Amino acid sequence: MVYPKAFVFDAYGTLFDVRAVLTRCEEVFPSHGAALTALWRSKQLEYSWLRTLMGRYEDFWQLTRDGLTYACQSLGLACTQERIEHLMQAYLTLEPFPDVAAALDALGGVTCAILSNGTPTMLRSVVQSAGFEARFPHILSVDAVRTYKPSPVVYRLAETHLGIERGQIALVSSNCWDIAGAKAFGLQTYWLNRQNAPVELLGVRPDWIISTATELANRSRPTK
Amino acid sequence: MVYPKAFVFDAYGTLFDVRAVLTRCEEVFPSHGAALTALWRSKQLEYSWLRTLMGRYEDFWQLTRDGLTYACQSLGLACTQERIEHLMQAYLTLEPFPDVAAALDALGGVTCAILSNGTPTMLRSVVQSAGFEARFPHILSVDAVRTYKPSPVVYRLAETHLGIERGQIALVSSNCWDIAGAKAFGLQTYWLNRQNAPVELLGVRPDWIISTATELANRSRPTK
Repeated sequence: MVYPKAFVFDAYGTLFDVRAVLTRCEEVFPSHGAALTALWRSKQLEYSWLRTLMGRYEDFWQLTRDGLTYACQSLGLACTQERIEHLMQAYLTLEPFPDVAAALDALGGVTCAILSNGTPTMLRSVVQSAGFEARFPHILSVDAVRTYKPSPVVYRLAETHLGIERGQIALVSSNCWDIAGAKAFGLQTYWLNRQNAPVELLGVRPDWIISTATELANRSRPTK
Repeated sequence: MVYPKAFVFDAYGTLFDVRAVLTRCEEVFPSHGAALTALWRSKQLEYSWLRTLMGRYEDFWQLTRDGLTYACQSLGLACTQERIEHLMQAYLTLEPFPDVAAALDALGGVTCAILSNGTPTMLRSVVQSAGFEARFPHILSVDAVRTYKPSPVVYRLAETHLGIERGQIALVSSNCWDIAGAKAFGLQTYWLNRQNAPVELLGVRPDWIISTATELANRSRPTK
């Protein structure tokens, strides 16, 4: 397999740590933070898949709000408009994982991009907040194609925008289902398995499995 | 809204009670039954959505097995081939909810059909096991279109197969996201909200919300 001409990174959970969301949820709803965060994230993704299948796209900011609203209702938590907006803000200032900056440096001059479900506004905000503007000259949002991962339409965005043949682009994601979609499309794939989870059974396997971003430059654990 | 010429029912959780799955999981993995059942069901659905988005269809029997295998691995439970097959069998002999038979009788002579993610074999098996052959002359599986709910392609199956215009067909489902897909396509929709859950925020609302199948003939609670 040729060394990638570009590394394309997922944002949430891959570059940026969503634990700040948990902290804020716990502040607003003491002792319900963990349950709320888990259901919120789950609904946010579920809605992205369902709306794509239904052909009823709404952007990720809206889906994030809808997921939070549903999660609060489901858990019996009083979700005033003010609380919803306060919790939503957590998504705009997420911190990068501590291993990310050094890992990006170790890749040398290879082109780096972000390919995310997030809206352009959401992505610009976290990139600025982390001081990553210079590291990511290409910030690609699914909003350009109004379709969510893992549709091939999304991964094609990277190929089209970067002008690099798909087999020479590597997607790095902490979401194994995102890796499956990218692999099915034909990208090289690095599953950043931070939680030591089993491989999702979706008919394709990641090319590489790493447990920290630091391992990225080493490509140390081929799975086939 | 005109009275439906046909009622089309979802199978799992709507007509048939999946609690037998929980019982069997608990027998095989004492004290892990609830967690295993929840994760199994969640992965089964997730894989149906993800594979449809990826364009990598596999039938629901395979997805059910994959979901179970992943769930066991994730929970650290020893999933021998024998145990997997034993647990899978639970899906072939589910009992109907106790309110279903009388509810179907109350609909009188209206055409009734099943429209489900299940394979034809899985559906025939539960229908026979429940003695429902005469009640459901039409058993429609998404396998015919190799695409899962809530894609409009699935709901079109009902329109095409029954030869009834979509606005005169009612879908009955306990899954609010299934209802959303059907409504987006243009079917009438009855959400059988057995768990008193909030409406999923997917941009469309059910036409009717009922809490037991018995209410079906009454159409007692319009939501708009």
